[in-house]
Amino acid sequence: MTAPIMPKSDAADLIVAARIRQGLKWSDIAERIGAPVVWTVAALLGKHPVPADKATMVVEMLGLGEGVTESLIQQPTRVADDAAATDPTIYRFHEALAVYGPALKELIHEEFGDGIMSAINFKVDVSRRPDPDGDRVVVTFDGKFLDYRW
Amino acid sequence: MTAPIMPKSDAADLIVAARIRQGLKWSDIAERIGAPVVWTVAALLGKHPVPADKATMVVEMLGLGEGVTESLIQQPTRVADDAAATDPTIYRFHEALAVYGPALKELIHEEFGDGIMSAINFKVDVSRRPDPDGDRVVVTFDGKFLDYRW
Amino acid sequence: MTAPIMPKSDAADLIVAARIRQGLKWSDIAERIGAPVVWTVAALLGKHPVPADKATMVVEMLGLGEGVTESLIQQPTRVADDAAATDPTIYRFHEALAVYGPALKELIHEEFGDGIMSAINFKVDVSRRPDPDGDRVVVTFDGKFLDYRW
Amino acid sequence: MTAPIMPKSDAADLIVAARIRQGLKWSDIAERIGAPVVWTVAALLGKHPVPADKATMVVEMLGLGEGVTESLIQQPTRVADDAAATDPTIYRFHEALAVYGPALKELIHEEFGDGIMSAINFKVDVSRRPDPDGDRVVVTFDGKFLDYRW
Amino acid sequence: MTAPIMPKSDAADLIVAARIRQGLKWSDIAERIGAPVVWTVAALLGKHPVPADKATMVVEMLGLGEGVTESLIQQPTRVADDAAATDPTIYRFHEALAVYGPALKELIHEEFGDGIMSAINFKVDVSRRPDPDGDRVVVTFDGKFLDYRW
Amino acid sequence: MTAPIMPKSDAADLIVAARIRQGLKWSDIAERIGAPVVWTVAALLGKHPVPADKATMVVEMLGLGEGVTESLIQQPTRVADDAAATDPTIYRFHEALAVYGPALKELIHEEFGDGIMSAINFKVDVSRRPDPDGDRVVVTFDGKFLDYRW
Amino acid sequence: MTAPIMPKSDAADLIVAARIRQGLKWSDIAERIGAPVVWTVAALLGKHPVPADKATMVVEMLGLGEGVTESLIQQPTRVADDAAATDPTIYRFHEALAVYGPALKELIHEEFGDGIMSAINFKVDVSRRPDPDGDRVVVTFDGKFLDYRW
Amino acid sequence: MTAPIMPKSDAADLIVAARIRQGLKWSDIAERIGAPVVWTVAALLGKHPVPADKATMVVEMLGLGEGVTESLIQQPTRVADDAAATDPTIYRFHEALAVYGPALKELIHEEFGDGIMSAINFKVDVSRRPDPDGDRVVVTFDGKFLDYRW
Amino acid sequence: MTAPIMPKSDAADLIVAARIRQGLKWSDIAERIGAPVVWTVAALLGKHPVPADKATMVVEMLGLGEGVTESLIQQPTRVADDAAATDPTIYRFHEALAVYGPALKELIHEEFGDGIMSAINFKVDVSRRPDPDGDRVVVTFDGKFLDYRW
Amino acid sequence: MTAPIMPKSDAADLIVAARIRQGLKWSDIAERIGAPVVWTVAALLGKHPVPADKATMVVEMLGLGEGVTESLIQQPTRVADDAAATDPTIYRFHEALAVYGPALKELIHEEFGDGIMSAINFKVDVSRRPDPDGDRVVVTFDGKFLDYRW
Repeated sequence: MTAPIMPKSDAADLIVAARIRQGLKWSDIAERIGAPVVWTVAALLGKHPVPADKATMVVEMLGLGEGVTESLIQQPTRVADDAAATDPTIYRFHEALAVYGPALKELIHEEFGDGIMSAINFKVDVSRRPDPDGDRVVVTFDGKFLDYRW
Repeated sequence: MTAPIMPKSDAADLIVAARIRQGLKWSDIAERIGAPVVWTVAALLGKHPVPADKATMVVEMLGLGEGVTESLIQQPTRVADDAAATDPTIYRFHEALAVYGPALKELIHEEFGDGIMSAINFKVDVSRRPDPDGDRVVVTFDGKFLDYRW
Repeated sequence: MTAPIMPKSDAADLIVAARIRQGLKWSDIAERIGAPVVWTVAALLGKHPVPADKATMVVEMLGLGEGVTESLIQQPTRVADDAAATDPTIYRFHEALAVYGPALKELIHEEFGDGIMSAINFKVDVSRRPDPDGDRVVVTFDGKFLDYRW
Repeated sequence: MTAPIMPKSDAADLIVAARIRQGLKWSDIAERIGAPVVWTVAALLGKHPVPADKATMVVEMLGLGEGVTESLIQQPTRVADDAAATDPTIYRFHEALAVYGPALKELIHEEFGDGIMSAINFKVDVSRRPDPDGDRVVVTFDGKFLDYRW
Repeated sequence: MTAPIMPKSDAADLIVAARIRQGLKWSDIAERIGAPVVWTVAALLGKHPVPADKATMVVEMLGLGEGVTESLIQQPTRVADDAAATDPTIYRFHEALAVYGPALKELIHEEFGDGIMSAINFKVDVSRRPDPDGDRVVVTFDGKFLDYRW
Repeated sequence: MTAPIMPKSDAADLIVAARIRQGLKWSDIAERIGAPVVWTVAALLGKHPVPADKATMVVEMLGLGEGVTESLIQQPTRVADDAAATDPTIYRFHEALAVYGPALKELIHEEFGDGIMSAINFKVDVSRRPDPDGDRVVVTFDGKFLDYRW
Repeated sequence: MTAPIMPKSDAADLIVAARIRQGLKWSDIAERIGAPVVWTVAALLGKHPVPADKATMVVEMLGLGEGVTESLIQQPTRVADDAAATDPTIYRFHEALAVYGPALKELIHEEFGDGIMSAINFKVDVSRRPDPDGDRVVVTFDGKFLDYRW
Repeated sequence: MTAPIMPKSDAADLIVAARIRQGLKWSDIAERIGAPVVWTVAALLGKHPVPADKATMVVEMLGLGEGVTESLIQQPTRVADDAAATDPTIYRFHEALAVYGPALKELIHEEFGDGIMSAINFKVDVSRRPDPDGDRVVVTFDGKFLDYRW
Repeated sequence: MTAPIMPKSDAADLIVAARIRQGLKWSDIAERIGAPVVWTVAALLGKHPVPADKATMVVEMLGLGEGVTESLIQQPTRVADDAAATDPTIYRFHEALAVYGPALKELIHEEFGDGIMSAINFKVDVSRRPDPDGDRVVVTFDGKFLDYRW
Repeated sequence: MTAPIMPKSDAADLIVAARIRQGLKWSDIAERIGAPVVWTVAALLGKHPVPADKATMVVEMLGLGEGVTESLIQQPTRVADDAAATDPTIYRFHEALAVYGPALKELIHEEFGDGIMSAINFKVDVSRRPDPDGDRVVVTFDGKFLDYRW
C-alpha cells in the first residue's frame, strides 16, 4: 500500500468529531482503555504513541477506520504550537509561569539542589475542587527530580 | 527626596545576596512573615507588592536599607521574560504545557464548560514527594474557574 | 459519520457570505437570537461556542446546512492573529493601548488595588456618538475586577 | 548648557517616586493641573508633551527640578513596548482585542462604512462600576470616526 | 447560494491575469471607472472596497464573472505583508523611512505641533519626472494632519 | 587622544537639547548651513555624514564642543529602528505602504519597467498644504529610477 | 480565459523537472537563450521577468506549455525567503557577511565615499578556480557604486 | 591584574578613532602589518584574533595602550548582528543573496556536486572597477569547495 | 513528462509508511544499501541526495514507485525547521549546546586554534551504552577541523 | 554586607582574563580541581554551580577575590543565548542538528522506544582525532535515556 500514514492531526480531528457526535466524554474513553484521562486525551490528540491494543479499542469504540489506528500507534513529533499558547485557557498557565516560574526554580533548587523536574518521567492531573467562592481548577504537575549529574 | 524608587530587580538582588550570606532558607523568611512560601519568594523577587509590615520584617531580618522596603511595597509590572523561560528548570514546565496544554484545555471545558482557570485568584505550591524510584517534584496550580460570562 | 467537524473559520465564511447576500445586518441576527450584538458577531466568527438553539436559529435564518450548526456549537480555541492585528481598524486599538496602557494600569491599581480587569467575565459594546465635529466610535470594555488573591 | 535633555522615562521615574512619597493620588495631580486623569497619567509617564504651565505646576507640586519640567514639555516618541504588553493588567486588553477585535471591525464598518476609530482624536476614561457580583472596571475608548477618503 | 465569497486575493489574481492578457494598462482601467490610478490598483488588488458600479464596470471590461464583482465590493481586512515588504521595489520605501522617518517626525511636529499625517484621509500619487541624469520616480503622500486632541 | 569618537546618538542628543534651549527651528539651522531641511535634520540626527564646514557651523551656532563636530563628520551606520517605527507619526507611513505598496510597485513597473526607485540617489521633502477641511502634510519621495540591468 | 497566471514557483518546478529529465545543464539553457548563466537560473527560478523570445525558447527547448511562457514573462515580486537562507550552501554567504560585512562597508566608504554597491545595476558570477589544496568556489559581486546624492 | 580583558568592541572603537585622527587609511595599516586589507579591517573590528606581533605594530602605530594589544590577540566570538545588516551598504549584499542565492546554489551543485563554499577557508576582496557609466564595486568571495563527505 | 518532481517530504512520507507497514528497521535498509545508518535515515528523510543505485534499491525493497526514486536522487535544500527543534527528543541536543556550547568553543580553540568543526566533512553516530543506572544514548559528532585560513 | 552577589558573567570575565594572563590552559585548571574539563569550563563560564572547595581552589590558583568564589558557588540560571548560537564554531553544531536531528530522533526511538536523551544526567567530551586528511574534532554527547513514563 503506497499511501502515507494519516497525519496525527487528521486522526485527532476524526476522533474529536466522533466523540462529540456519539456524546461520549473523554473520561468514557479513558475508562474504556484503562488509562489516565489526561494521558488519554493528550495521546489521542497526537502527543503520545498509543499502544496497539488501546488504539484498536478507541477506533472500534468510535467507529473509525484502520487508518486512524495506524496513525495513533506512531511515534509523534511533539512540536510547540505558539499560536495555541495564546488561547486564554492555555495562556493562563504560561502567565502563571511568568509570575511564579522564578520562585518555583528557587524552591526546587533549595529543596532538591541543582536539577529539574522531569517532563518525561512525568504525569499531570486536573480536577475540580469545590469552593464556596467558586469551584477551582486544580492541576498537579508531578515529575521525577533529576539532578544535574555528570 | 528626589531619587527614583529602587527597581524591584535591584531589591531582589540585595535580598538574595543577604539571604545566602546569612544562611537563611526561603522558608525561614516565609515563616517569619507568615506567608506562603511560593508567594513569598515570588513577591521578594518582585512579582507581587509586599504589604508594608511584611516588607519591613524582611528588610530588618536581612539587615537591608529602607530603600528596599520602599521598593518591595510598590505595585509591580509583571513582564514575561522570554530568556528566563529557556532555563532548563523553568523550560520543563513550558514543555509540559506544549505536550499537555491542549489536553488540559479539553478537560477543563468538559468539566467546567467554557472558561479558564484564573491566574489571578490563584495559588501554587511545590513539594517533594518521596518515591523509591527517585523523589518527585509536585507542583500544584490551584485557580478559581472563571466562566466566559457576558 | 466519519468526517471531521467543519472548522469554525469555514462556518464563519459561510455565515458572512449568506448574511451579505441576504442583505441582513449583524444586528438583525443578534435580535433574532436575542443576544448582544458584539457577542453575536464574535461568536459567529468563531470566538465563542454558540448555544444549540441559537446556532439552529442562525443556520435556518441564513439557509445554511447542519454542518454549520454543529461547528458553531463547538468549544473554540481562541488564538491571537498577529496579522489581523495590523488591519488599520483593529490596529488603532492596539496603538491606543501602547499609548494609554500604562496609564490605565496605574489608575486601575490606584482605584482597585493589585489586580486586573477580567477579559472573561467581560462584555464590550460599540456605539456611535453623534458629534458636530464628526461622529465618534465609542467602545466600552466592561470587565469584573479581579484582585490578586492567594 | 551642553547636556542632553532628561529622558522622559527618567522624568517619569522621578514623578512616580515623588507622588508616592508625598502620598498623592494621580487624581490629585490631574485636578491640580485641570486635566483629565488618564491624559495626565499618560502625559507624566512620557506619552504626551505637557504644556509648559502644567509641567511647571506638576514639578512645583512634587518638589522636583527644572530638568523635569524641560523634559515633560518635549514632544515624545511613542514606541510600543512589547514587554510591558505582557503585564497581566495590560495583557487582558490585548486578549480582549484578540477575541473581539474582528467583531468590532465588522460592526464599525456596518455602522460607519469603511474607516477607523481615530487613536489621535481620541480620549479614554476608566471608572469603577459597583456591582453586587464584584465591582467592575469600565474603560471607554472614544475616538472620532475617520472614513477612508481619497 | 451556500458558498463563501471569493477571497479578494483570488479576485485580484483573476483581474491581473485578464488585464495582462487583454493588453490593458492600469490607467486604462482607472480611466474607465473614473477613479485615481493608485486608488484603482490598490482597490483591485484587494485593499479597498470597490463601489458596486465601478466593480461591475471592471468585471465587464475584463470579461470576468459575478463572483469577482461580489468579492470586490466587500470590506477588506488590510493586513501588513512582511514578506512583500522585502521586495526591492517596496523595500526602498521602508529603507527611506528608516533613514528619514525621524527627520520627517521632527519637521511635522515643528510645523504642525503634536500629531500625525493621516493614512486614512490620505491620497498617494506616483509619477515620472524626466531628468537628464535619469528619470525619477516621484511619489507623493498627501494626508490630512490630525493633531492629538483629547 | 585615546578616547573613542562620540557616538552620533550622543551628538544628536546634544544638538536637539541646544536647539530647543536656544529657541531655534530646524529650518534656522538648515538655512545657516545652506542645506535642504530634511537632509539637515536627518544628518544632524546621525543618518548622514556632515561635511566638515557645515558641521563646524552647526557646532558654533549651538555652542557645542569639538567632539560633536568630529562625530558629525563620520560615516554613519544606518540601522533600522523597529521600535521607532511604532511611533504613530512614523507608523502611518509604514501603514500607507502596507496598503499602497503593491499598487506603487505595479505602477512603477508599468511606467518604468523592471526596477526600483533609488533610496540613495533620493531626496524627500515635507510641506504643509492649506486645506479648508484641515491642512495637509505632503511628503514627496523623489528618487532616480534604477532598472535591473545586468 | 479566466484563470490566474501560473505562479512563478510552479513554472520553476516544471522547468527544473524538465531540465533534469532531459539531462540538460543550466549552462545549456543559458547558451541557448544567449544570456549569462547566473541571470538565466535566477530568472527561470522566478527572480527576473524573462523577455518573451527567451521565454519561448526555454519552453520549447524543454517541451513545456504556454502557461509556463506566460508565467516567465511576468514581473516578479522578489521576497526574501528566511527559511532558504538556512540552507548550508546559502548560509555560508550570509555568515561571511556577518564576519566581513562591516569591513566591506569600511572599505567601500574609504574608497568611494558615502554610498552603496547597487544590487540592481548589478551582476554576479560564479566559477571554479582550480587549487592544489582543493578547488575553490569564486563568486564575484559586481555592482555600480551609487553615492548618497540629494 | 584582576580586571577583565578589554572587549573587542572597545578596542575597535579606539582603533577607529585613532586611525581617523591620524589621517591614516585602512590600507596604510594593512600595509604596515603585511596583511590583506579586508582581513586587517575585519580583524581590527574584532572578527579575527590578531597575531601578537601584528597587534603590537598596530597599537604602536596608533599610539594606543597595551590593553588594546591584549584585546586584539584574543579569540573572538563572531555573532551575527541583525541590526547592522539593515545598514543600506550591507543590506544590498543580503538582498543580492535573496535574489541570486538559489541560483548560486544550483550552479555550485551543478559544477561541484553536493557541498558548500567554505566561509572558513575563505578570503574576500573588494576593489574599484572603472566604468564609463559609473565606477563599480567588485567584491570577490573565494572559498574552498567542501563536499558533503561522510 | 510535464509534472514537477515529487517533493522530498512526500517521498519521505511514503518511505516511512512503507517501512513501518513492512516491519523493517532503519538498520535493515541501511544494511541493504551498504551505508551508515544515520546517513541513510537522514538521506531518506530528504537531507542528502541519494546515489541512483541506492535509491533504486530502497524503492524496490519498499515497493514504491519511480517517482520516489527520482525524488531521492535530487539535490536537497536543507532548511532549518524551527518547529521541529522544539520536539523534546531534539530539543535536548539544542539545550545541551546552550549549556555546553561556549565551553566546547573554548576547548576547540585551545586545542586546535581559531576554526571550526566542519558540519560538511562530518559524520555522526548514535548508539546505546548499557549502564546499570539506566542505558545511555551516546551520540558522536565527528567533523574535520577547519582553521580560519585566508 | 549589602551588595549584590557578583554576576556569574563578571566572574567568568575575570577568570578568563586571569587564565590567559597566567598562561594557563583550561585543562590545567580542570586537573587542579579534579574535574572533567568540559564540565570545568562550563561551570567557570557560569553554567553550573561550583562546589565551594573547587571554587576556592580556582580563585586561589588565579589570584582572584572572594567575590568570585561567592559567585561561582551560586545556582545559575541557564538561559539560551541566541546571539552566541550564530558564532560559526557553535553554529555548526546547530546546523548538524538541523540536518541530522530528525534522523537521530528516528534512531533513538527505534532503539529505545519513546523518550529522550537526558540533557541533565548527561556528560559531553571533546577530543582531537588525528587523521591524515586533517585532524578531526570529536564531540560525544552521552545522556541517560529517559522513556516517557506516566
